[in-house]
Amino acid sequence: MDLNFTVTATDPSSKGRLGMFRTAHGDIQTPVFMPVGTQAAVKTLDPAEVDALDYRVILANTYHLYLRPGHEVIRDLGGLHRFMGWNGSILTDSGGFQVFSLRDLVKISEEGVRFASHLDGSRHLLTPERAIEIQEALGADIIMAFDEMATPEQSPARVLEAAHRTTRWAARCLETRRRPDQALFAITQGGFDPRLREQSARELTALPFDGYAIGGLSVGESKEVMAAMIEATEPLLPTDKPRYLMGVGTPDDLVRLVARGVDMFDCVMPTRNARNGSLFTGEGKISIKNARFARDEGPLDPECGCAACARFSRAYLRHLFMAGEILALRLNTIHNLRFYQRRMEAIREAIRRGSLGEWAARLEREGA
Amino acid sequence: MDLNFTVTATDPSSKGRLGMFRTAHGDIQTPVFMPVGTQAAVKTLDPAEVDALDYRVILANTYHLYLRPGHEVIRDLGGLHRFMGWNGSILTDSGGFQVFSLRDLVKISEEGVRFASHLDGSRHLLTPERAIEIQEALGADIIMAFDEMATPEQSPARVLEAAHRTTRWAARCLETRRRPDQALFAITQGGFDPRLREQSARELTALPFDGYAIGGLSVGESKEVMAAMIEATEPLLPTDKPRYLMGVGTPDDLVRLVARGVDMFDCVMPTRNARNGSLFTGEGKISIKNARFARDEGPLDPECGCAACARFSRAYLRHLFMAGEILALRLNTIHNLRFYQRRMEAIREAIRRGSLGEWAARLEREGA
Repeated sequence: MDLNFTVTATDPSSKGRLGMFRTAHGDIQTPVFMPVGTQAAVKTLDPAEVDALDYRVILANTYHLYLRPGHEVIRDLGGLHRFMGWNGSILTDSGGFQVFSLRDLVKISEEGVRFASHLDGSRHLLTPERAIEIQEALGADIIMAFDEMATPEQSPARVLEAAHRTTRWAARCLETRRRPDQALFAITQGGFDPRLREQSARELTALPFDGYAIGGLSVGESKEVMAAMIEATEPLLPTDKPRYLMGVGTPDDLVRLVARGVDMFDCVMPTRNARNGSLFTGEGKISIKNARFARDEGPLDPECGCAACARFSRAYLRHLFMAGEILALRLNTIHNLRFYQRRMEAIREAIRRGSLGEWAARLEREGA
Repeated sequence: MDLNFTVTATDPSSKGRLGMFRTAHGDIQTPVFMPVGTQAAVKTLDPAEVDALDYRVILANTYHLYLRPGHEVIRDLGGLHRFMGWNGSILTDSGGFQVFSLRDLVKISEEGVRFASHLDGSRHLLTPERAIEIQEALGADIIMAFDEMATPEQSPARVLEAAHRTTRWAARCLETRRRPDQALFAITQGGFDPRLREQSARELTALPFDGYAIGGLSVGESKEVMAAMIEATEPLLPTDKPRYLMGVGTPDDLVRLVARGVDMFDCVMPTRNARNGSLFTGEGKISIKNARFARDEGPLDPECGCAACARFSRAYLRHLFMAGEILALRLNTIHNLRFYQRRMEAIREAIRRGSLGEWAARLEREGA
C-alpha cells in the first residue's frame, strides 16, 4: 500500500501549506475539509452528490457504526466503502470523543472505557485494541488511535493523566494495528494548558504514526484559547505528516487555522446548519426562514452555482423549509457543503499566491 | 394552445386503452400514474430525480399551496413550474377534497365553502370561481373543477344534493376559466350509489370539459364498491376525453382499473409507504425494517435497477432506515416510484398485446 503525504507548496506569509495525501482510495489535496457522515451517510445526501461536490474524503463515526449496524456486519458486507457506496477515502474517528461525551455513563480505567449505549443502554468496553479492531473491520483509509479526552472542568493533574494515558493507549493502538492499507493517526491532547499540549505532542510524535490530530478542542473554548493550544502543538508536529484539527470549524476558522499549519478539518457545522435553515453565503450567514425571502426570486448566493443556487429561488427554498419538506434539507446541505468546498479552494489558491497570511490576519483583526 | 387527447390503441380483452395527452408542457402517455407533490415537491425528491424516473406529470395540491406560500406568491414568481423547477406537466386538484376533509372546520353553502386553515386557523372562503382563480395563478397544465364531496355516512338525499351542487359549481368553473392553455376537468361524484354516479356523470358530460375525473372514491370502501361505482360511471364518459380516478391506488388496483377504462391515477401510496419503510418488489411488499435484511447484501428488488437497487444492499437500506437517515426516505421513494412506473409500463405493454383483460381477471380471482 502506497500511503503517502507530500507537502507540495508552502505559504511564505503563514504556516499554510499545500499537500497531497495518497490513501488506498485516491489522492486528497490538502488543506482539506471532510464532511461528516456519522452513520455511514453524509446526512440527507446520496454519496454521488458528495462526490459531485468534489469531496474526496469523508468522516464516519466508529462509535455509532459499532453500535449500529455493528462493525462485523459492515466487515462481512465488504467494508464501509462498499456498504455505503462511497469510493472516495474515509476517515473513522476512534470512538473516544463520543464515548467520553456520554459522561455519567462512562467508567475509565487503564484498560479502556466501559460505557452504556445511548441507543439501548447495553454495556460495552472500548479499549485501544478494540478501537483498532473495529476500525480495521470498518476498513476506513485513515483511522484514529483511541484517546482519552479530559474535559475543561477537570483538574490539571487529571488533564495530565489523560494526556499520558492517551500516549500509552496510542502505543497500544500501534501495536495492535495489522492493516498496512490504513493510515493510523494519533490524537494529541493536553486540555487548555500549553505545557501539557507540548508534552502530549512530544510523547506522541516520538511514535511512528502516519499523521497527528489535535483533539479536545472546539468544545466551547474561545478562539484565543484554541489558537494558543494549536500554537503550542504545531511546532512539535513533523512537517512531513498531515495535521488534523478535529471538529473545526466555521469558514473563517478554516482560513485562520490553515494559516496556523493545519491540513485537515472535519465539522458538522455545514451539514447541521443546513438542516436548521442556516446557510453560508458571500454576504455572511442567512436564515432561510426569514420572511424577507418569501418573494425573493434570486439564488441563495449569486456567487455559488451549486445544484440549489443554479436552479431554485430563495423563495422556493424558504417555502420548502417552512413547509417541512425534506428536499429543503438536501438542497441546503448541498449549498453549505459547496460553500465549504469553495472556501477550501480559495484557501489553497491563497497559499499558491502567498496571500493566506494576509487573509488570516485580516480575519484576526476583524475578530472573525 | 394545442391541448389534445388521442386514444392510440384499445385492448380487445378489456376497456383498457392507450392514449397520448398533449399539454402545454409536453406529451403524456396514458394510462399514467402521477406522483403526488402536495407542497410543490414530490416528498424527498429533487425534480430532476422525478424526471429521471420518466414521470412526465405530477400532481400538486391547490389547498396547500393556496395557504402556503400563497398562489399569488407563486404567480408572481412565474408560476408553479418555474417555482419548483419542474418542466413536465402538472395537475392541480381543486382543493375540494382537502377542504371537506377538515370536517368540523367547514361550512358549506351554494356560494362555496368556508373553512379554517389547518396551519393557523385563519378563515377562508373557497368558491368555484376562487378555485379557478387560484389554479390559474398556479398555472398547472391540468386543473380541476371545484366539487362537493359527500361523505359515505351522509344520507342519500345529501349525497344527491352534493352531486347536483357539484354540477352547478362545475358550470361556474367553466364560466370563470380564462386560460386556454390549461385543461379543465370536471369531477363526477355520487357517493356509493350507482344511480347517483350515473346522474352525476350525465350532468357533467353535458358540459364541455377537457376531461372527467371520478371523485369521492378510495375513502375506505371495498374494492367491489369502488369497481361498481366505476362501472356505473365509465360508460357515460366520452371516449375521446381522458378519465382520471383520483387517489388510487395499489399496483394491482392500477391493473384492474385501467382494465375498467381509467386513463389517469394519482396516489400518495408509493411515496408515503416509502417513508414508512414499506417497499414494493416483484415478490410483494416488504418492510425494510425486518431484521432478516440486516446482513442481506442483495438489492431490494433484483428486477428493478433503480438508483437504490443498482447501488445499495438491503442491509444498507435497512441500516439507513433504522438509523433515521433521510437518505433512506429518498432511496425508498425512488424505488417505489420506479416500481409504479414499471407497473404502468407493463400495463401499457399488456394493452398493446391485448392481454390486460387476462391480467386483470387473474387479479380479480386472486382478490388482489
